[in-house]
Amino acid sequence: MIFDFLNIQPDNARYFPAERLQLFATSILQALNVPEEHARISADALVSANLRGVDTHGIINLLEYTPMILDGSYTIPQEIRVIRESESTALMSNGNGLGFVGGVYAMRLAIQKAWETGSGQVVICDGRHIGMAAYFSMMALEHDMIGITYTNGSRSVRPILGARTRLGTNPLAFAAPAGKQRPFVLDMATSTVAGRKIELAHNLGVPIPEGWAVDYKGHPITKPPLKRSDAWAQNPLGNTLVQGGHKGYGLAVMIDIMTGVLSGGGYGANMSFGQNYTWVMALDISRIRPVDEFKQMMDDMIIELHSTPPEEGAEQVLVAGDPEADTQVLRMKTGVPFHYDQVKKLNELAASLKVDGLH
Amino acid sequence: MIFDFLNIQPDNARYFPAERLQLFATSILQALNVPEEHARISADALVSANLRGVDTHGIINLLEYTPMILDGSYTIPQEIRVIRESESTALMSNGNGLGFVGGVYAMRLAIQKAWETGSGQVVICDGRHIGMAAYFSMMALEHDMIGITYTNGSRSVRPILGARTRLGTNPLAFAAPAGKQRPFVLDMATSTVAGRKIELAHNLGVPIPEGWAVDYKGHPITKPPLKRSDAWAQNPLGNTLVQGGHKGYGLAVMIDIMTGVLSGGGYGANMSFGQNYTWVMALDISRIRPVDEFKQMMDDMIIELHSTPPEEGAEQVLVAGDPEADTQVLRMKTGVPFHYDQVKKLNELAASLKVDGLH
Repeated sequence: MIFDFLNIQPDNARYFPAERLQLFATSILQALNVPEEHARISADALVSANLRGVDTHGIINLLEYTPMILDGSYTIPQEIRVIRESESTALMSNGNGLGFVGGVYAMRLAIQKAWETGSGQVVICDGRHIGMAAYFSMMALEHDMIGITYTNGSRSVRPILGARTRLGTNPLAFAAPAGKQRPFVLDMATSTVAGRKIELAHNLGVPIPEGWAVDYKGHPITKPPLKRSDAWAQNPLGNTLVQGGHKGYGLAVMIDIMTGVLSGGGYGANMSFGQNYTWVMALDISRIRPVDEFKQMMDDMIIELHSTPPEEGAEQVLVAGDPEADTQVLRMKTGVPFHYDQVKKLNELAASLKVDGLH
Repeated sequence: MIFDFLNIQPDNARYFPAERLQLFATSILQALNVPEEHARISADALVSANLRGVDTHGIINLLEYTPMILDGSYTIPQEIRVIRESESTALMSNGNGLGFVGGVYAMRLAIQKAWETGSGQVVICDGRHIGMAAYFSMMALEHDMIGITYTNGSRSVRPILGARTRLGTNPLAFAAPAGKQRPFVLDMATSTVAGRKIELAHNLGVPIPEGWAVDYKGHPITKPPLKRSDAWAQNPLGNTLVQGGHKGYGLAVMIDIMTGVLSGGGYGANMSFGQNYTWVMALDISRIRPVDEFKQMMDDMIIELHSTPPEEGAEQVLVAGDPEADTQVLRMKTGVPFHYDQVKKLNELAASLKVDGLH
């Protein structure tokens, strides 16, 4: 994570290997009647987020999904089906179930269409939280394809010049393969920060930087609120009109259109918490130019970016995906850190479902 | 234009109707041996930018293209051809000629592929300046399609934490049709501001806001430099790491990949001034959901965004494309304003080519 002050401190943490977390998450979901394949897919997406250091989208979210599965907000088991289809596009139903399952099926279909016609785009209606958007985009990499994922959410971000929330943090994730260098993986909310970073700052009792959020009059706030309300709003990327806040706002609406409006699910302002619509695309590089040449140029570009002289006080220029790839290498060795309090909550969840906890 | 201090003041301006500008630009280009159809296409794209208030991408650019056509940097007449093609993708050569021509042919082909297979993507190698990116995306609207355009350019923007330029301002333009409301048209550089706004501020002798650019150590500057150099750099959208500058930087690289690396033309750091690579996409909405329902939801969303309570001191929340559409309505009546000095320069150009000036 880029913001050190939001990191879990090592002396408050316990570490678990990825395999253990994968088994744990799969067991929890299977105890909730999720079919084994769907549970494995979901667990893999969640643990992958933890491995990459995107802990806000990791297995801690089982605490949020579980009550929504138990109260019937999610349909379990879910049925994935293609509603409408053309040679290079599809509208897919997620069956109102776990978002990861729809996301993976959608990207698989997009990749298949890219094999057949050069590119494929799939949009999901009745979707749910997909966690780390990069997970789906990165599925394209092993096929030497470019992968893109957009997903929208219920409102927490204001339009620029507005004083109320109308948009989700609506992230986009873009993955492109390289040769000897690591792939380029951009995964970003179109707000100044992902919403869960503000939640995390609240939970850790630390202030947020000015520019991340405003009160109901549009004035900056630095005390992180816990819950969404009309009393405050996140800023779109850019924050103010002079600094390009209309661009972050515009990107958020673009993503609302490509996901919620295109699928028919809905846009930020009329969505309920927990609804998410998703659009994925795969593009077969080999239909455009030889893959080896593409990868060689990616390598050259990445090397050039890394070698940019840094600004005063900075160590090195990074490329999107660097911090997450570094974290993954580290955590494959050390395991994934969880705050004691998080472990306690996850184990309480496990006990309530009569499955093995994290030991 | 959003920034009033960059506007031409009415008492320093002369106004010309769009038809007059269209004829003028076509004549200039034909005098440079550009075939009539290519001249008309280019003139239409340029005048369309002027009508929408995007004067930095309007006919004033003829002053820049002309010497590059005369010295052979541009190949005139140019040959447009498809180099490689799949059912839903294509790689196209712009024949090293006017960027507008390649852009229009590419979007026409993307639209045709979208008719045939649901979506189409075309990427242009050996491209040139395409001006206002929204022009190409908006071509999709009359076909009830969504249009997207990315274009890259030579370096003027720094990677976040970097102290040298490595990226172009790499804009993206996204257009989606609505019903009774105006279409949603987002056209944005992935830098804090478009480069030509800084050039314009220099020419008008006004300072730029802190956050738009930095010196060679990464410190903010407010005196707008005239020429690109290693002494300064534009900021990516977000400006600083804490405010999400890695996102604007990431978007710029994403666009470099989809345009320059995918086409094989090149990426920001290794491109010469005047080179630009472009990717366009068209998506046929009717293959996903009924167009009328899509447009109805677009209307609802736009109305909802417009009705957001504004922040203290603001008048109204706008939607991307509003200022440009308003300007177009106005300028269809008043004509397009040009500073006296601009008229003089354009008329000198006309005289040098022995064509009629702007009277």
